Amino acid sequence: MPVPAGALAARLSLNQGSVDRWDLRQAVGGCARHGYPFIGPWRHRVAEVGLPAAARLVRDAGIAVSSLCRGGWFPAESAGERRRRVDDNLRAVEEAAALGTDVLVLVCGPASGRDIDGGRAMVAEGIAAVAPYAASCGVRLAIEPLHPMFAGDRSVVVTLAEALDLAGPYPASMVGVIVDVYHVWWDPTVYEQIARAGGEGRILGFHVSDWLAPPPDVLKGRGLMGDGVIELRRLRAAVDEAGYDGPIEVEIFNQGLWDLPGDELLALMKHRYLAYV
Amino acid sequence: MPVPAGALAARLSLNQGSVDRWDLRQAVGGCARHGYPFIGPWRHRVAEVGLPAAARLVRDAGIAVSSLCRGGWFPAESAGERRRRVDDNLRAVEEAAALGTDVLVLVCGPASGRDIDGGRAMVAEGIAAVAPYAASCGVRLAIEPLHPMFAGDRSVVVTLAEALDLAGPYPASMVGVIVDVYHVWWDPTVYEQIARAGGEGRILGFHVSDWLAPPPDVLKGRGLMGDGVIELRRLRAAVDEAGYDGPIEVEIFNQGLWDLPGDELLALMKHRYLAYV
Repeated sequence: MPVPAGALAARLSLNQGSVDRWDLRQAVGGCARHGYPFIGPWRHRVAEVGLPAAARLVRDAGIAVSSLCRGGWFPAESAGERRRRVDDNLRAVEEAAALGTDVLVLVCGPASGRDIDGGRAMVAEGIAAVAPYAASCGVRLAIEPLHPMFAGDRSVVVTLAEALDLAGPYPASMVGVIVDVYHVWWDPTVYEQIARAGGEGRILGFHVSDWLAPPPDVLKGRGLMGDGVIELRRLRAAVDEAGYDGPIEVEIFNQGLWDLPGDELLALMKHRYLAYV
Repeated sequence: MPVPAGALAARLSLNQGSVDRWDLRQAVGGCARHGYPFIGPWRHRVAEVGLPAAARLVRDAGIAVSSLCRGGWFPAESAGERRRRVDDNLRAVEEAAALGTDVLVLVCGPASGRDIDGGRAMVAEGIAAVAPYAASCGVRLAIEPLHPMFAGDRSVVVTLAEALDLAGPYPASMVGVIVDVYHVWWDPTVYEQIARAGGEGRILGFHVSDWLAPPPDVLKGRGLMGDGVIELRRLRAAVDEAGYDGPIEVEIFNQGLWDLPGDELLALMKHRYLAYV
């Protein structure tokens, strides 16, 4: 579904994880120079600058914040550690609000040990402990299912169906999901679940990259849009069709791309975004 | 669910891919020495020896063949190439029958290009083209869903649900599925789908290894049972409960383990199998 390039360009967001060599100030400057209207910062990059300075930085540059990465990581062996994780999520909520975004991305975390269903129950408890405070701050929790290859070390939530089931008990104004093509493209039910997420008004973000075949690395093997096998335009059309018209974050973890000069990388990603998404 | 070690030992099968350094003759000898009542050979290893010699080898050693790896790989760009793939599957059926196993494992193959749903349709066509001949040879097709991290380069079939949907049009005497813990452990619906597979009488094999967290490699990063995060005993109990009482293949692709002397590796795998499966 071709759309006017201008409409697509107006939704472009730089997930800060795509440009590992830049701090927040540099990334915001890059967004301004290369016409990325949005940025999705990471918390450790915000912490480097300090929250008030980070908020000023993006505001002064006229760049909007599409989301904050990331809360979550709920499962832990002891109740005390799980409370500590929840507290950290409350801080993340405050940071999102201060940065002017209403979307906090949740990477839910792995199970402690072998009990994946137990880990899933702890994620549900964690969300229950954070959601009311988030709502009071005007921040929505965006559960991001990760690719099943991260089920052991990053997220027990691995499908959109599972994320939507977790979101189910809450109104869409409180809890939704992120659709990241890299994490969900393989799912035989992905279009059905995107339609379901849209019908519930729960799509809070759309992330793009590509799946290289075979993947060169588990963590840092994401591809530039157009270099892999994901049907990017079909997925984007499905997300549009489902009613999502917000920012689209380019989020690529790839050592080879991280090694490029930041300005070249931002130009390249924007070019591929317009050509393939 | 503890079971008598003897009952478990009687089901042990060596998938030949676990011992990369050994040819079929060596692997069969290893099975005899270490008390593996079954072996799951790979076709290229059978071809090295020649089919009649391979069949004699296992028969003379008193080792049963649990399955033949592998048919499948159906999607291809041209109709001619797809026909060639089907022909190759017909040869694989004949080889399975000659080796004395009624299970041909199907690794269904990746899409050619970006059309994953098109690839899935080609898999369905391929199975339709092979299943009647397989049935006439007394060989059942066992669709093995692979982990979604192989969706781009090895299999468009990535969940048990999808495999069972593909098997659905055929009687269980013709088409079933392989449950490999490495490929399905992450699935929030895995126990439901194992019960479904069992209810339909379609479980044709059970493969074990472990999931290391984080995985050290995409292809060769499987772990020894007990070294990872998979709930092996719970999954085995579920497969038992679903009515499967056939061979259990140890299938581990791991360079570090491949580098061990074969006899040490077989002893180690059997020890871990009895302790953790």
